[in-house]
Amino acid sequence: MTNIGIYGSNGRMGRAIATIAAGEGVTVAGGGDAGSDPLPIAQAADVLVDFSTPAALEAHLEAAVAARTPIVIGTTGLLAAHHALIERAAESIAVLQTGNTSLGVTLLGVLVREAAARLGADWDIEITEMHHRHKVDAPSGTALLLGEAAAAGRNMRLAEVRVDSRAGLVGARSEGTIGFASLRGGSVVGDHNVVFAGEGERIEIGHRADDRTIFARGAVKAALWLAGRAPGRYAMAEVLGL
Amino acid sequence: MTNIGIYGSNGRMGRAIATIAAGEGVTVAGGGDAGSDPLPIAQAADVLVDFSTPAALEAHLEAAVAARTPIVIGTTGLLAAHHALIERAAESIAVLQTGNTSLGVTLLGVLVREAAARLGADWDIEITEMHHRHKVDAPSGTALLLGEAAAAGRNMRLAEVRVDSRAGLVGARSEGTIGFASLRGGSVVGDHNVVFAGEGERIEIGHRADDRTIFARGAVKAALWLAGRAPGRYAMAEVLGL
Amino acid sequence: MTNIGIYGSNGRMGRAIATIAAGEGVTVAGGGDAGSDPLPIAQAADVLVDFSTPAALEAHLEAAVAARTPIVIGTTGLLAAHHALIERAAESIAVLQTGNTSLGVTLLGVLVREAAARLGADWDIEITEMHHRHKVDAPSGTALLLGEAAAAGRNMRLAEVRVDSRAGLVGARSEGTIGFASLRGGSVVGDHNVVFAGEGERIEIGHRADDRTIFARGAVKAALWLAGRAPGRYAMAEVLGL
Amino acid sequence: MTNIGIYGSNGRMGRAIATIAAGEGVTVAGGGDAGSDPLPIAQAADVLVDFSTPAALEAHLEAAVAARTPIVIGTTGLLAAHHALIERAAESIAVLQTGNTSLGVTLLGVLVREAAARLGADWDIEITEMHHRHKVDAPSGTALLLGEAAAAGRNMRLAEVRVDSRAGLVGARSEGTIGFASLRGGSVVGDHNVVFAGEGERIEIGHRADDRTIFARGAVKAALWLAGRAPGRYAMAEVLGL
Repeated sequence: MTNIGIYGSNGRMGRAIATIAAGEGVTVAGGGDAGSDPLPIAQAADVLVDFSTPAALEAHLEAAVAARTPIVIGTTGLLAAHHALIERAAESIAVLQTGNTSLGVTLLGVLVREAAARLGADWDIEITEMHHRHKVDAPSGTALLLGEAAAAGRNMRLAEVRVDSRAGLVGARSEGTIGFASLRGGSVVGDHNVVFAGEGERIEIGHRADDRTIFARGAVKAALWLAGRAPGRYAMAEVLGL
Repeated sequence: MTNIGIYGSNGRMGRAIATIAAGEGVTVAGGGDAGSDPLPIAQAADVLVDFSTPAALEAHLEAAVAARTPIVIGTTGLLAAHHALIERAAESIAVLQTGNTSLGVTLLGVLVREAAARLGADWDIEITEMHHRHKVDAPSGTALLLGEAAAAGRNMRLAEVRVDSRAGLVGARSEGTIGFASLRGGSVVGDHNVVFAGEGERIEIGHRADDRTIFARGAVKAALWLAGRAPGRYAMAEVLGL
Repeated sequence: MTNIGIYGSNGRMGRAIATIAAGEGVTVAGGGDAGSDPLPIAQAADVLVDFSTPAALEAHLEAAVAARTPIVIGTTGLLAAHHALIERAAESIAVLQTGNTSLGVTLLGVLVREAAARLGADWDIEITEMHHRHKVDAPSGTALLLGEAAAAGRNMRLAEVRVDSRAGLVGARSEGTIGFASLRGGSVVGDHNVVFAGEGERIEIGHRADDRTIFARGAVKAALWLAGRAPGRYAMAEVLGL
Repeated sequence: MTNIGIYGSNGRMGRAIATIAAGEGVTVAGGGDAGSDPLPIAQAADVLVDFSTPAALEAHLEAAVAARTPIVIGTTGLLAAHHALIERAAESIAVLQTGNTSLGVTLLGVLVREAAARLGADWDIEITEMHHRHKVDAPSGTALLLGEAAAAGRNMRLAEVRVDSRAGLVGARSEGTIGFASLRGGSVVGDHNVVFAGEGERIEIGHRADDRTIFARGAVKAALWLAGRAPGRYAMAEVLGL
């Protein structure tokens, strides 16, 4: 029986994870939110899941490292400093950080990377995403994850080729760039689409999340897979055997 | 037999119009391009079609007014100053200016206006477009035309509610805004899609141009319809009886 | 305060309607299911909502007529005989029968009819729908509703022009027909798309239901609107002021 | 300099191939159509391309075998008997038979096979295609090619799991089946879409051909690649290094 500790347990994802975990006979070791001490939970749990805020990440990682408890990080909006903290924590515990815990998006990343690797640079890559009207950042973490996959397929870093928006007299498209476009509206859970546009033909690889529980299911699956692993960085694609 | 004079006759649209006109038994009075005197063509023609550049518009309008010849204007990238020139010309000749001469897009504008009028402001409107990699401006003139239609359905002006791109920490969506997103890639002739996103449901109204000749056919149809009309402003929707 | 009586109250839609009604301060007069006597509910309610089965419709209509209570019918899979029963009931009570109670689909029907009326018969009409893997009939009632709207726009009856599937050596498309295609899979709530395909261009008008509660909300809205109306047939478009 | 012989040289694809070949400095050895003797062309050419009719295939294969000339077969509508003839011919010459010669569709087959292999049987697969109103058979050869790829990913044969259409009271979806839906209308060159529908999420992998010349370019590329090869069966994926 695996004990899962949840950071951000009062948030939408935290609650969904607790529900899914309960349905799968997994114990929830305890839930921590802003203000509570993260260490007791880390000590009681076999594995931690963090869907809280970037600001709380450092304290959560310290607790996880102190208790030698593996941690799945699904918190979004991370900056370079957070990624550095994650790297350091991974020297002493197992860490899996991902922008999206769904099976579908994880497979999408694999397919996008492969398509980008096999199509020449004369196939232009554009990534669109749509989310509900309350989302505050753009592009979505998942869109960036797909952009990284596309760039990796071409042996590039996304930062070198990323174009976040087009408005005004922007000139002709530069070869090799990867464009992003973000739509916001209604209650959309999350649509992503990657377009590869060649001369006279197009390939599109897309994902639609119809229901938020797919992310909670994936997070629980990742936690169960990560519990007991050796220190290091792990990826959703490994959890799902992709 | 109607005589059509073409400004921008060496451009892609100008040549396509000449081809279509020939196929329909219409005479092409002559073609004018940058540097040539626009007056003789205006005098020889029953109706003019302008697919040239914004810079040349003033001279073309002066010639049309001097010769009392109606004019269809399909040139894109027009600024407020150009629209003022068009208004003045329309006091003495028939003028039809449009961002898109296809039947499909013209109908789309009618449907979008109607949908916007009938759905409450709690339905968020987002407009996407994709064009080939050589297009230099964004959003496309057609996307803006559709945005005007949506705004008109809500008794608004597009300029008041237009959001051209989203990148970074942009915050939650503001009610009543109309968002635009532009994709560029490959050889895409022109895709447009208008999304109305409500709580739990979405409506999408889209158009795909598979072939550039639809624009030339529409321009010839507009020219034949405009020839002989009284001074004033006319619209594609009237040409098509929409 | 309006009292709503629900036939099929134990079904997925019946339960959703009860939940929505409770949230809007509407009383649910009572719920009836297979085997229970429909008359007491009809007598206690100001308006009835039927989301049960075609087999139970006759008894429900008889009860509604006996109690002089208006009725909203959302039950799908109705045959010609059921429609005849509805016609007769509408002579003595208010009846609103619809294949879809959502605002979005109702507006879609209006737009599709208009597009079909304004585009010539050389624009081919194709209707696709996708629903979850448990749905047993095809095309969906909503797809047929959209097909009726398209046919009405051309002053035709759908039955005259309907083509339900294409498989094998079916020959070239016959002008004026309306084609249907049904996809089944996963947990899809309901996607519908109407394609108008012309020479060199396409218009698409689509709807996605992301959440089943839109149908329950629409049914409650229809019930509140229908209560107290004079005998006769009514339509969702009237409820929504379209 | 490679000499290409074309069977079906007066057809739309045959003429497009001749145009592309000319542009790439490839000689066209001669063109054969219904009624002409196929042997002289086979003897004069370094490689043959067949875009004719199933009825003519046997004679074309006999000529190719007699002349020891490799052959690319893009003719569609082939039956089991034709595939048997192709197998036999491949014992003595190089043969490449494909339902689609475009780079995009060939890559799509690779991606679809991979997605099907990695997603469980609880992800339902549906394949849609749209073509112009003149196409006489359904589903398209390309849709079947994608269906074969999906079935192969699951270690199945398409024939065992194929469902060509749904109309009427068809019952719930059977697990493991692959559904097809065919739309016809306008002048659509060819759209294909493969949907993987899971619980709460969907992946879509699609291709749009905007321009028929992509098929001719692919056919010429395949011919140049096949010329001089040893006897046996070859695939487009090998031509494109996928």
